[in-house]
Amino acid sequence: MTARALLSDLPAYTALKEHAVKLQYASLEGLFNADSNRADTFTASAAGLHLDYSKHLLSSSALASLLDLAEQAGVQHGIEALFTGAHVNNTEDRPALHTLLRASSGGGQEDRFLEVQRARERMQVMAQKLYRGEHTGYSGKTITDVINIGIGGSDLGPRLVTQALKPFQGTVQCHYVSNVDPADLLDTLANLDAASTAFIICSKSFRTEETLANGLAARNWMLNAGATTAQLDKHFLAVTTNLQAARDFGIPEENCLPMWDWVGGRYSVWSAVGLSCAIAVGWDRFSEFLAGAEAMDQHFRNSAAHCNLPLLMSLLEIWYCIFFHASNHVVLPYDHSLQRFPDFLQQLTMESNGKRVSADGRELDYATAPVLWGSAGTMGQHSFHQLLHQGTLLCPVDFILPLNTHTKAAQQHRILVANCLAQSRTLMVGRSLEDATNALMKRGLDEDKAATLAPHLVMPGNRPSSVITMASLDPGTLGALLALYEHRTYCSGLLWRINSFDQWGVELGKEISTEILGQLAGTNDGSTMDAATDRLIKLWKDAQR
Amino acid sequence: MTARALLSDLPAYTALKEHAVKLQYASLEGLFNADSNRADTFTASAAGLHLDYSKHLLSSSALASLLDLAEQAGVQHGIEALFTGAHVNNTEDRPALHTLLRASSGGGQEDRFLEVQRARERMQVMAQKLYRGEHTGYSGKTITDVINIGIGGSDLGPRLVTQALKPFQGTVQCHYVSNVDPADLLDTLANLDAASTAFIICSKSFRTEETLANGLAARNWMLNAGATTAQLDKHFLAVTTNLQAARDFGIPEENCLPMWDWVGGRYSVWSAVGLSCAIAVGWDRFSEFLAGAEAMDQHFRNSAAHCNLPLLMSLLEIWYCIFFHASNHVVLPYDHSLQRFPDFLQQLTMESNGKRVSADGRELDYATAPVLWGSAGTMGQHSFHQLLHQGTLLCPVDFILPLNTHTKAAQQHRILVANCLAQSRTLMVGRSLEDATNALMKRGLDEDKAATLAPHLVMPGNRPSSVITMASLDPGTLGALLALYEHRTYCSGLLWRINSFDQWGVELGKEISTEILGQLAGTNDGSTMDAATDRLIKLWKDAQR
Repeated sequence: MTARALLSDLPAYTALKEHAVKLQYASLEGLFNADSNRADTFTASAAGLHLDYSKHLLSSSALASLLDLAEQAGVQHGIEALFTGAHVNNTEDRPALHTLLRASSGGGQEDRFLEVQRARERMQVMAQKLYRGEHTGYSGKTITDVINIGIGGSDLGPRLVTQALKPFQGTVQCHYVSNVDPADLLDTLANLDAASTAFIICSKSFRTEETLANGLAARNWMLNAGATTAQLDKHFLAVTTNLQAARDFGIPEENCLPMWDWVGGRYSVWSAVGLSCAIAVGWDRFSEFLAGAEAMDQHFRNSAAHCNLPLLMSLLEIWYCIFFHASNHVVLPYDHSLQRFPDFLQQLTMESNGKRVSADGRELDYATAPVLWGSAGTMGQHSFHQLLHQGTLLCPVDFILPLNTHTKAAQQHRILVANCLAQSRTLMVGRSLEDATNALMKRGLDEDKAATLAPHLVMPGNRPSSVITMASLDPGTLGALLALYEHRTYCSGLLWRINSFDQWGVELGKEISTEILGQLAGTNDGSTMDAATDRLIKLWKDAQR
Repeated sequence: MTARALLSDLPAYTALKEHAVKLQYASLEGLFNADSNRADTFTASAAGLHLDYSKHLLSSSALASLLDLAEQAGVQHGIEALFTGAHVNNTEDRPALHTLLRASSGGGQEDRFLEVQRARERMQVMAQKLYRGEHTGYSGKTITDVINIGIGGSDLGPRLVTQALKPFQGTVQCHYVSNVDPADLLDTLANLDAASTAFIICSKSFRTEETLANGLAARNWMLNAGATTAQLDKHFLAVTTNLQAARDFGIPEENCLPMWDWVGGRYSVWSAVGLSCAIAVGWDRFSEFLAGAEAMDQHFRNSAAHCNLPLLMSLLEIWYCIFFHASNHVVLPYDHSLQRFPDFLQQLTMESNGKRVSADGRELDYATAPVLWGSAGTMGQHSFHQLLHQGTLLCPVDFILPLNTHTKAAQQHRILVANCLAQSRTLMVGRSLEDATNALMKRGLDEDKAATLAPHLVMPGNRPSSVITMASLDPGTLGALLALYEHRTYCSGLLWRINSFDQWGVELGKEISTEILGQLAGTNDGSTMDAATDRLIKLWKDAQR
């Protein structure tokens, strides 16, 4: 990879620093007053999603400079490179073709697309058999429960999608086990009948420590319940490329669906990794989910920068991280079925862009991925919103709001909607000392007491947020929403000049863990650790006696 | 309240700034090499918990200055004020006596303690009746499922405790519903039988919007299932002070347990708010939970500063927030049953200390509460740990590790332990360019390729973490753990000079929400909002047609 200018070397960088100085104390209400079209201008729509980004510390000229930055960084070229199979994952010398997994045509990647189609067809057959209740276990009972065993990308994506599409769920219940803590699997198995339970082992290498440990425990559970080794094929499916290891485990090749090295784990829910989702909601719904993502892909690839949703959201991320030193980003879905969305996004954004060197190996002199966190509204309002409104940190927020509910409780849903819009507005308008004092005097406090208490009620306001709405959360809009954040993550990686598709930082911990495990198991007694770790190992050993 | 020196006015502040300059690029391994006792010295134990804080960017002299800071801030006096019922919640002019809820004697608060004891006795009777399966519903069926309806402190605490004590659970299943999104309650009711289900409505005022909406929906569900209004008392309990509202709802006084205005929601799990926990695990276990917290209380009140766990952890929080500009703090329990602990801590820390003015109303010139986030290990290792190891942010971590598992799967649990210790060590040691290059050449890469790739494998290390261990997670150690973080939060509030017990910042959003709800419901058509909110309201209305 040839050396490219870092973000801080681009001409627009200087202009943006100046804009930020001007805008850091700007009044958002003032910006609305100065431009009666702001509420319309600072919005964009695509693939069933609507983005309102008018409540940001952003002027038209600052936005123009951000768009300049994107142009100078060659974002458009980077987007094209993603779709055409360039080796955007340069440190592992391969493309990142998750868009192909939801494509309806090959678009130049015909060989790979043929593989995708073949896998999709096999996946459809497997999923539909389970979805329709035609898959039976060792005793002839219909499979009613499916447990996906995977971790990271083999867990967070399918777990989120199944939960988010609960209103569309068929008769099979899908469960998710990821933690190596044996309690995770045991709690899940507690109320299940082995005869009607099937497992999906999701691991590209079939060697992931957590997944293999849980897989073996699941296998023992099944054998102890009465299945024979020969019957394991009725209860175990796999998503893996290591067919030999799967076969040794007891899963024949016809039960295995493929993964590809040109798709990273955190971008893989569109592949056979989504098998559990397809089982839960059926193939038609899963196809709509893919189609929603494809609609976002086309928007991302073909839209001009100034109305390109993922790019706009990425520019906002860069804006606050680099020019306002925000080190966190909050995502608040006002929909209970999206309560796991922040967990999914943590992997997507922090594993992709939690990097300190550029794609060509130079140490960066600016901040990259912020901490992403959040929870489903309205629950956070009774928890951490205090800090959002009155804390000392800048916390830009994305509110996500489906406008209709799948429940029949429209009236109760209105309360949810009102709370969402109110939080976004409150962050913007805040409350002045004068308003606080008046409010307290109206409650009957005398002037002195009101003056003493009022500073505690003051809210500075001018705290930025976006609102992303959709008519309702369905397979299509969910697919579009996930693809939106995927592409936002990619754009930010382009701007930061990093490779969003590797994760070298997780390697060393695994090596050291293996060494320590040897010490715990007594197979490696040489003390090669630091004094603190040695001491903790001793503490553990003493606690075992 | 008389004006006290702010944190930045204390003499130790200047000394700490100098220490931080020296230590910001310190080598943690170097600190261990320079002091062979470090692994012992930088540890402390209390109430069944062990804190190892040796892997921090901290020298003995910096620690001494932090302890000076605590002394200059009058922390010891503040601790005493908490226990003796001083009005530490000055803006609401009342004490914060959550410690009394787990006390075994009044300690000067005899009147209040008598009330606590009376409430405990009534709570014990209610809990044991349900725990023993002696509470029957309208049709005579035994109650097998209890749903706690509450939000914020009336939800997060009991939800956490019930999940954490799952290995001790009796026959009643407890569920938790908090979100006003109707999907939360409906999903929970989906598989339950009204005849064997009871609800606990947890709301001090009996007016909390979310709780009341869900309570009414639950009431309708019960009536539709066949219960008569007169039989509602068999299915509804309440924790509230508004006896009239509860009675109007259908809950007689004998089904109501009290709350007190001298206990904040986020500190209330020790009160009747913990009723669902006592039902889940029985009264003996719940008493052990209280006793564990009381043991931590006594340690907190009576221990010298240099071995005071909550104070030491608070000083570390201040150290990184103020002097290293860390804006986040990570909590990683390596125990699946503590997976909700970060959610609980978000409310505890961010609602308590997400403030921008001192207790006496002066605007602060330093950062207060950081964002607290995390997840159960090992799951995060396959997600956001990439950023912990190679991102550009300083993220101090608390690892929490029970040394024994309640499952029989000791071998699998060892993998969990090894991973926890390995992550803490890896954050400290990192990987140099030379080590990275050598590792790559050992894998067969030639010198050029290894040199190109190595920068991506480099990990700076010297990233700080604590390890908190306990023999096992049981009611006693869980109580101590929660009390530890409560007192850590209080100490940080003392040092930051803020009132940790109010939450004025959540008020305005509720007012604005009511206005918007009027517009959505068509009862308030005046446009009093900003252009963006007006537009989003219109978007919602259009989506309803």
